Amino acid sequence: MNGEQPSERIFENANVSLRPISSGAEKWLYRPIKCLDFGFVYLVDYMGNDDAIVQAARTSYGQGTKKVSSDEGLIRYLRRHAHTTPSEMVEFKFHCKMPIFVARQWIRHRTANVNEYSGRYSEMLDEFYLPEPFALKQQASENRQGRGDDLEPAVEQIILDLLKEEYNRQYGLYKRLLGFNLAKELARIGLSLANYTQWYWKIDLHNLMHFLRLRLDEHAQYEIRVFGEAMAKIIKDAVPISYQAFEDYQLYAMSFSRLELDILSKNQWPMSKEKVAETVSVIGNKREREEFLEKLKKVNFII
Amino acid sequence: MNGEQPSERIFENANVSLRPISSGAEKWLYRPIKCLDFGFVYLVDYMGNDDAIVQAARTSYGQGTKKVSSDEGLIRYLRRHAHTTPSEMVEFKFHCKMPIFVARQWIRHRTANVNEYSGRYSEMLDEFYLPEPFALKQQASENRQGRGDDLEPAVEQIILDLLKEEYNRQYGLYKRLLGFNLAKELARIGLSLANYTQWYWKIDLHNLMHFLRLRLDEHAQYEIRVFGEAMAKIIKDAVPISYQAFEDYQLYAMSFSRLELDILSKNQWPMSKEKVAETVSVIGNKREREEFLEKLKKVNFII
Amino acid sequence: MNGEQPSERIFENANVSLRPISSGAEKWLYRPIKCLDFGFVYLVDYMGNDDAIVQAARTSYGQGTKKVSSDEGLIRYLRRHAHTTPSEMVEFKFHCKMPIFVARQWIRHRTANVNEYSGRYSEMLDEFYLPEPFALKQQASENRQGRGDDLEPAVEQIILDLLKEEYNRQYGLYKRLLGFNLAKELARIGLSLANYTQWYWKIDLHNLMHFLRLRLDEHAQYEIRVFGEAMAKIIKDAVPISYQAFEDYQLYAMSFSRLELDILSKNQWPMSKEKVAETVSVIGNKREREEFLEKLKKVNFII
Amino acid sequence: MNGEQPSERIFENANVSLRPISSGAEKWLYRPIKCLDFGFVYLVDYMGNDDAIVQAARTSYGQGTKKVSSDEGLIRYLRRHAHTTPSEMVEFKFHCKMPIFVARQWIRHRTANVNEYSGRYSEMLDEFYLPEPFALKQQASENRQGRGDDLEPAVEQIILDLLKEEYNRQYGLYKRLLGFNLAKELARIGLSLANYTQWYWKIDLHNLMHFLRLRLDEHAQYEIRVFGEAMAKIIKDAVPISYQAFEDYQLYAMSFSRLELDILSKNQWPMSKEKVAETVSVIGNKREREEFLEKLKKVNFII
Repeated sequence: MNGEQPSERIFENANVSLRPISSGAEKWLYRPIKCLDFGFVYLVDYMGNDDAIVQAARTSYGQGTKKVSSDEGLIRYLRRHAHTTPSEMVEFKFHCKMPIFVARQWIRHRTANVNEYSGRYSEMLDEFYLPEPFALKQQASENRQGRGDDLEPAVEQIILDLLKEEYNRQYGLYKRLLGFNLAKELARIGLSLANYTQWYWKIDLHNLMHFLRLRLDEHAQYEIRVFGEAMAKIIKDAVPISYQAFEDYQLYAMSFSRLELDILSKNQWPMSKEKVAETVSVIGNKREREEFLEKLKKVNFII
Repeated sequence: MNGEQPSERIFENANVSLRPISSGAEKWLYRPIKCLDFGFVYLVDYMGNDDAIVQAARTSYGQGTKKVSSDEGLIRYLRRHAHTTPSEMVEFKFHCKMPIFVARQWIRHRTANVNEYSGRYSEMLDEFYLPEPFALKQQASENRQGRGDDLEPAVEQIILDLLKEEYNRQYGLYKRLLGFNLAKELARIGLSLANYTQWYWKIDLHNLMHFLRLRLDEHAQYEIRVFGEAMAKIIKDAVPISYQAFEDYQLYAMSFSRLELDILSKNQWPMSKEKVAETVSVIGNKREREEFLEKLKKVNFII
Repeated sequence: MNGEQPSERIFENANVSLRPISSGAEKWLYRPIKCLDFGFVYLVDYMGNDDAIVQAARTSYGQGTKKVSSDEGLIRYLRRHAHTTPSEMVEFKFHCKMPIFVARQWIRHRTANVNEYSGRYSEMLDEFYLPEPFALKQQASENRQGRGDDLEPAVEQIILDLLKEEYNRQYGLYKRLLGFNLAKELARIGLSLANYTQWYWKIDLHNLMHFLRLRLDEHAQYEIRVFGEAMAKIIKDAVPISYQAFEDYQLYAMSFSRLELDILSKNQWPMSKEKVAETVSVIGNKREREEFLEKLKKVNFII
Repeated sequence: MNGEQPSERIFENANVSLRPISSGAEKWLYRPIKCLDFGFVYLVDYMGNDDAIVQAARTSYGQGTKKVSSDEGLIRYLRRHAHTTPSEMVEFKFHCKMPIFVARQWIRHRTANVNEYSGRYSEMLDEFYLPEPFALKQQASENRQGRGDDLEPAVEQIILDLLKEEYNRQYGLYKRLLGFNLAKELARIGLSLANYTQWYWKIDLHNLMHFLRLRLDEHAQYEIRVFGEAMAKIIKDAVPISYQAFEDYQLYAMSFSRLELDILSKNQWPMSKEKVAETVSVIGNKREREEFLEKLKKVNFII
């Protein structure tokens, strides 16, 4: 129960079932992907596969879907047009272990089922997230929430030493309070957000993709992105057609606002840097203007 | 896609999977239970079993659950104390076909995933719910929404003939409007609530039990109760320990209000009919008083 | 209770409250907007305004939001980046009356609170949706669910006469069955989807905008779009800054897929019709290709 | 933004609105109730009152509700029979400040809207929950999660001193890490669960009552119960009839299981202690048996 890898025994327990399987999901069952220093994600159970989405969609559209010849075409059509209900028919259950500050961001996704390890019932473990040196960054200057440039290596070492020392002290205090027989639900309150927790987390494919879209984003905090990437890896194998469509139409898609479309429609592209600067000046808001320039760069519309 | 029984072919598709199975659920996969005249419910897929609830609960409570010796004891404990999150870890997917007025009550349960047959895309079928004579009842007198006494057999026959005639006319009109090439989404608006629709419906065990609690109730409309009973049959086999606990602590439990408890605590039971009448008179509201008398009868507290 | 306009009395009931108000919302309170022949939408109550979104966002971002100078800038920033939780802090409650087939589409939006008129308790009214002639269209040929060309006026008249006749017969049957004292919950099953129902519907701004995005779309069924437009009118006045941002960044925005972006980035725009045809041919799926051409047209990228 | 009391200025901002008001709610607007050492709860906004529940219910039941003569009777009837949708029509928005470990329990109630102070954007404050001596208890022996007997006063003092010292050190480290210009989202990870956070929290009455039912319970952790009690105080004034019904039919009600009802029905009550012991022995599970004895005591069925 303390989150170690599932025993080998479980792999012998192959069962015969009439349920549809996903061979891509099967290969990830009970195989933890290590995340950060003490964390992991592994697939505990799943329901459905790409076919389940087709099956549900064809029930809705009945004869009407004959036109879309292939299953792949249908799945891609559904995602392109944000017809998301069929992808709610696929479900995944993960066992995850993560620092509490990651868990706090994660739990904001409400459309999921959760059973978390409880510090009221059970002793918290002596496991605290200590970032790797590369993950330590300065506060971003242009962005109020993100990370910016590297720190000096010497400073990095000081920070890591300070954190390590603090974690030791915290856990020592915790054990000492338990030694006084203080109720566990109180003894834990001095433990930090870096302490690890774990949970079972069950979510449908539609909501998981929404989670991934937000948490794979470069603006997501690095420590939760690691978990997002682990789950993305599993999902990519479990529902390959859906995942490909997700990448094509959502993750790597780009949206242009009404005003941006208006500017696009009135000009020739690509455009010189100077002319672009002038052209986008109709966007009054500085931040919005910069975001538009960023998009123009991505499609090579600035030369 | 028009809801006929799944072909035999599907039964040959047994797969080997590392996932846990529920042998009770397996035997219901793709086996429709007939409901009303054209309706059915069958299990399309499922995830988890009684063990999955234990697994999730033990993650929460960790070492703290050692005290509850057996898995069965833990499941019963959880349900007795309305700790419902572990039972959200089990999921069921059904294919159901029902009259539209039943679907309208059903859909009010929001915590589920649905893909319904669409009359905008596909032709509606010539299938309308015609009650069996025993199901035709008079309006209840004491209850504004329910059914009361039987009707005269002759009246029953008249009603059935009238409905049958009306259904024929409605469907004839529908086909005639389609013959004019009127858009399907408009041609269907003259079809009645007795017309059949169908959907895939996916729900977790906790929410399914909430559904069953309301829809197995004697005050639920008979036509939806039939579907509730079909699903209850499947669930009983799929998660036998949980279902037993559900019956013991929810379905067949009885709750007493603050005032009722006060009356219970101040008297000796059982009590004579006359004394009861006097005793319960402190409950000012007539309806509430009658409901209390009903409960007292059920526990043989009136002699 | 049968959905007539709220009495004038209500307008005298102005109250003094410490709560923030939205002057734009106030003017729509209890003022029904007629929808279709017997339907309407009016605002019954609301909570919050554009400021409430700012207030919630500034709690999240604290000092971090100082950078975004104006409230309007913040609201627009939030919507541009799909930070939707602050807009969940605003709530609207509507009283709506609509044909049952519209209610059936509407209810699919699950994140809302609903109390619907019940045909089990109350008599259904003799109100059925009869489309206006302009709304009668042929089945679309290129799209399986939509409406296409006009019908012959003579055919339109035949259709309307047939529907009117059918509604009369249905309601006559309903009254006749009630005359037999058949339980209301059964007597109503022969009534059609064109019959009107009504409900109280409460939803937060975020979810309402999601509803509007889908239901204001040209592919939404005309009869529900009418209700979407009525609510959009109210919302536009109630939260003008948010609504403007919604239009700019969602309703009138356009998304390009990974492959489309790739094509955009490798070419010069606008492009001749012939060259476009060749260029887009790398998109294998015909439907997807046509959708891309549609977008290119909208931004004047085809000459 | 750091959660101090709202300025007096706000009280001058009384507005005239056509919306229904709750005079009981008005008096609580912007009036913080202190919770624990640095925490509070205050009502920021609300929508609806007891009448709104009646209004929604009468829409559902139409003429059918004439029978229930009074509004109060209707509200009580709805709650007694768990017809909860009308109470979803009332909404409350709170500003709350609480220790992070309390926030973590609180957020498990998913059917609510939340905007929380973000440690990624803003500096965390030097505010940590230090229990009052009376709140420090030993680990309960019979219950794995609760608190039991008092600690020695001398031990209490040691614990408080240790916690205070630890909080100082943690916050010192936090400031030092910020001094290195470490990104805020990383600098905070050494802060403990006792550190305060705050949020705007919006929830409907039905879900709030569910929250209260669980969090007013004697088994809820004391520190969240304090917040539950603060909100209960406000709700009691805001919707007095509903709150009374909630107490009568839910909070102070008691449920008996199938087996317990069977035992009740076969015996005479009250019963001697010795006979009870023998009678309840048919309940095989020790814990369940003890719970039944507890209930019997509460209704004075043991003499």
